[in-house]
Amino acid sequence: MAEYATSIGTSDATSITLLGHDLAGELMGKVSFGELAFWLAALRRPSAGELTVFEAVLVALADHGFTPSAIAARLTLTGAPESLQGALAAGLLGGGSRYLGVTEDCGKFLAAALAAHDGAMPDTDAGWDEIATKAVTAQRAAGRLVPGLGHPIHKNGDPRTPVMFQIARDSGVLGPHLKLFAAVGRVHPAIIGRMLPLNGAGVCGAALADLGFPPDLLRGFALLARTAGLLGHLAEEMRKPAGQDIYREADEAIRYVPPQES
Amino acid sequence: MAEYATSIGTSDATSITLLGHDLAGELMGKVSFGELAFWLAALRRPSAGELTVFEAVLVALADHGFTPSAIAARLTLTGAPESLQGALAAGLLGGGSRYLGVTEDCGKFLAAALAAHDGAMPDTDAGWDEIATKAVTAQRAAGRLVPGLGHPIHKNGDPRTPVMFQIARDSGVLGPHLKLFAAVGRVHPAIIGRMLPLNGAGVCGAALADLGFPPDLLRGFALLARTAGLLGHLAEEMRKPAGQDIYREADEAIRYVPPQES
Amino acid sequence: MAEYATSIGTSDATSITLLGHDLAGELMGKVSFGELAFWLAALRRPSAGELTVFEAVLVALADHGFTPSAIAARLTLTGAPESLQGALAAGLLGGGSRYLGVTEDCGKFLAAALAAHDGAMPDTDAGWDEIATKAVTAQRAAGRLVPGLGHPIHKNGDPRTPVMFQIARDSGVLGPHLKLFAAVGRVHPAIIGRMLPLNGAGVCGAALADLGFPPDLLRGFALLARTAGLLGHLAEEMRKPAGQDIYREADEAIRYVPPQES
Amino acid sequence: MAEYATSIGTSDATSITLLGHDLAGELMGKVSFGELAFWLAALRRPSAGELTVFEAVLVALADHGFTPSAIAARLTLTGAPESLQGALAAGLLGGGSRYLGVTEDCGKFLAAALAAHDGAMPDTDAGWDEIATKAVTAQRAAGRLVPGLGHPIHKNGDPRTPVMFQIARDSGVLGPHLKLFAAVGRVHPAIIGRMLPLNGAGVCGAALADLGFPPDLLRGFALLARTAGLLGHLAEEMRKPAGQDIYREADEAIRYVPPQES
Repeated sequence: MAEYATSIGTSDATSITLLGHDLAGELMGKVSFGELAFWLAALRRPSAGELTVFEAVLVALADHGFTPSAIAARLTLTGAPESLQGALAAGLLGGGSRYLGVTEDCGKFLAAALAAHDGAMPDTDAGWDEIATKAVTAQRAAGRLVPGLGHPIHKNGDPRTPVMFQIARDSGVLGPHLKLFAAVGRVHPAIIGRMLPLNGAGVCGAALADLGFPPDLLRGFALLARTAGLLGHLAEEMRKPAGQDIYREADEAIRYVPPQES
Repeated sequence: MAEYATSIGTSDATSITLLGHDLAGELMGKVSFGELAFWLAALRRPSAGELTVFEAVLVALADHGFTPSAIAARLTLTGAPESLQGALAAGLLGGGSRYLGVTEDCGKFLAAALAAHDGAMPDTDAGWDEIATKAVTAQRAAGRLVPGLGHPIHKNGDPRTPVMFQIARDSGVLGPHLKLFAAVGRVHPAIIGRMLPLNGAGVCGAALADLGFPPDLLRGFALLARTAGLLGHLAEEMRKPAGQDIYREADEAIRYVPPQES
Repeated sequence: MAEYATSIGTSDATSITLLGHDLAGELMGKVSFGELAFWLAALRRPSAGELTVFEAVLVALADHGFTPSAIAARLTLTGAPESLQGALAAGLLGGGSRYLGVTEDCGKFLAAALAAHDGAMPDTDAGWDEIATKAVTAQRAAGRLVPGLGHPIHKNGDPRTPVMFQIARDSGVLGPHLKLFAAVGRVHPAIIGRMLPLNGAGVCGAALADLGFPPDLLRGFALLARTAGLLGHLAEEMRKPAGQDIYREADEAIRYVPPQES
Repeated sequence: MAEYATSIGTSDATSITLLGHDLAGELMGKVSFGELAFWLAALRRPSAGELTVFEAVLVALADHGFTPSAIAARLTLTGAPESLQGALAAGLLGGGSRYLGVTEDCGKFLAAALAAHDGAMPDTDAGWDEIATKAVTAQRAAGRLVPGLGHPIHKNGDPRTPVMFQIARDSGVLGPHLKLFAAVGRVHPAIIGRMLPLNGAGVCGAALADLGFPPDLLRGFALLARTAGLLGHLAEEMRKPAGQDIYREADEAIRYVPPQES
């Protein structure tokens, strides 16, 4: 018969154990929700500096306004107001490759470049620039975009990026992924022929990778952050519904083309 | 043409505004993720005491081991490992009336009892007991269970309950919903004929209602908390897959009964 | 150890059994998909007349244009084009009480009225009118809407309704739920003071209830029908994307109101 | 202002148009649900032969017993019995790359091999074998599995495969994808060193590709078919719940390992 080893939680008649600690006596009121989320995913408690960076990432990624995902969540609440979990789920399902994927793709791109690097990590900007040049050049040669570069609105700089670097530096956890990402910012114009901003989703992916999370998990933190944002949208939708109007506007903008003319 | 008023966020070429504040300059690194989640839903910043209670609630509700929802998330990752958002969404979809509903139901039950009370709120236990007696008696007369009472495992007391009361008291935000919930704990044995524990999901619903959130939103915080727990399960599933074995065990336990004999 | 009795399917090295029949030899190419769907849910094969009505219901409910659910599915594909299952799931999640609920609510309303009726079923219109009058009057007295009445667009009659009655009659399966629903159409103006059309979602709920399905399952057939419609929308979205524009239009229609002024 | 061209449906006060036809007068009772599903996705009505193959594919893919996706749907209903749409959605979300992906992957593999072939399509088995040999050899050289080959249970032959070929042949719509798939079955043992069965998911992918659907849409038909199967499981779950026991069995099989020992 199967047995499933788990290190998350267990309970008996008188106690609840979470991450090897007594939930009621040792965790409630003593660790923040962000700290618990880190711990659950990493199975280790973050240092103070790591926690600062981690919570800053979650704050940076929580909301982006009326995104496709926020609108889908609102429209789902319009149709099924009795099921808040359905509206949240619908919102998260839009968190795929095109939007939330940047965080993951950037973390993976940087991790792959670091893994491909022989020898010790550099200790100078020039050293990082060399790795970055190699990685960006190879990415371009393969006909692929460099993840983390460019933003449709913040064309001259994403305001989150320098702040995230500063927070990581101040917290003493500026690691190789962020250093390499900074180098990508320096070297890419010479390779791709124009200057693009390092975007917020990308810097968050670099920061999360520096915290030691496996690349396949990075999208999960963007989704956790987004859950708080979606909850904000759904709370607002309950107070001031927009879903019905968004639906009506779209429906009225339809032009019917018979299939044979399509 | 429609216009959608929103107070969550907006952005322009050089800045991102969230909740009326500059995201990069005023929020990142300065507010915790829990604080931001409260703020997004309430459109106001919590006091220090409120935040302590709010984060304690999220910590209390984050995980409950191998629940149906955690197993569903793991099985979904088994089938669609490329879509972490799908696995998270599947897990959240199990957060309905039977499990996560207690938090919401309890908040609603207490809020309705308070709304039905004429005059000023009591300032003695006897006064709270009177409201509680009325509410529990009416609930029983209607043939309904009292939300927040009883636990399948913690039959002699849910360890989270006294801790949550203490945290609210220490934080100066012990409000009418929690006071009434405590009274329910005192008066119910005389009405229903046996002593049941005040459970953790219920005390969290009372605490969230005291923080001023509308009852229809309470399930959302249980879902947010659960998102962190599900991410822990999915991270563990990536390291040590259990989904495939859970599937195999269930599949092997099937006994096929032809439809006509069913 | 648990054992799960199931009558749906099983397989061994050389055969696949579905509903007690050999899938490859007895079902593929011999039963329509609609027939199989009926059989899977009811565990019995439909008669020819039942199948005609069942497929007509699925055809009637498959699509309703740019509904909130279709738009949510399209927006989800915009964000996660790699996950067609996520887009379909998001679309289905909007199939809750407000839209798809009518089919279920109407079936339940009629079933409850029939269950409350003492004695044999009527054999005259006058007899059905009596049951309908009682049910509609009670529903109104309870302050509730009569499910299946009224339509936002088809104010003078939903074109699907008379056709569904005719198909059921021609197929020899016009049963008590449809007869009662017709009676609701005759008696309601005198009770509620105005003439409302019997809508298509309602007549489909009545028809499904006549086929013997339990009321809690009726929404499921609306969801199955909708799955085909959503697939049509997603196929169209792949050919001629609208999601990006719907998002942009909504995003541009936002007016930011600082939280303190909200 | 945006305008969204759509050829699916539209309606006005007195009529509902679907696919350029009057829904009530021309479609209800006259086309099967399977036919409508084809039409919605393809924007053209299938021929009789195409419809036979299409419905056979949907029948073949509808159910696979207690799969991870069926179990996830049942567990979700356990937690949220009020939300059938949530349980269906959770089940569909497991329809990703690992299981339902075979249908899509096989269709794409065959389509790519055909696209890479210069000149007219072959008219002999030897001609098809040549294309198949090239494609299988290239796939193996790239270190990838050949989609549609092998089955965990039906090791000596999937019973659905010969039946699907026969149905397509009898219906006069045996096209290049199926012919190439048959050739893959003939040539692969010499290339990969052992004989594997052509599986049912693969033959369905080939059949759907022969019907003219774009490869990115193929997974959608597997999801539609699965929706009927999931509805069968959820109907059975309502009658004879298994979810609670599956949960309990899994929960009891847990062995807690403190994080530091993990």
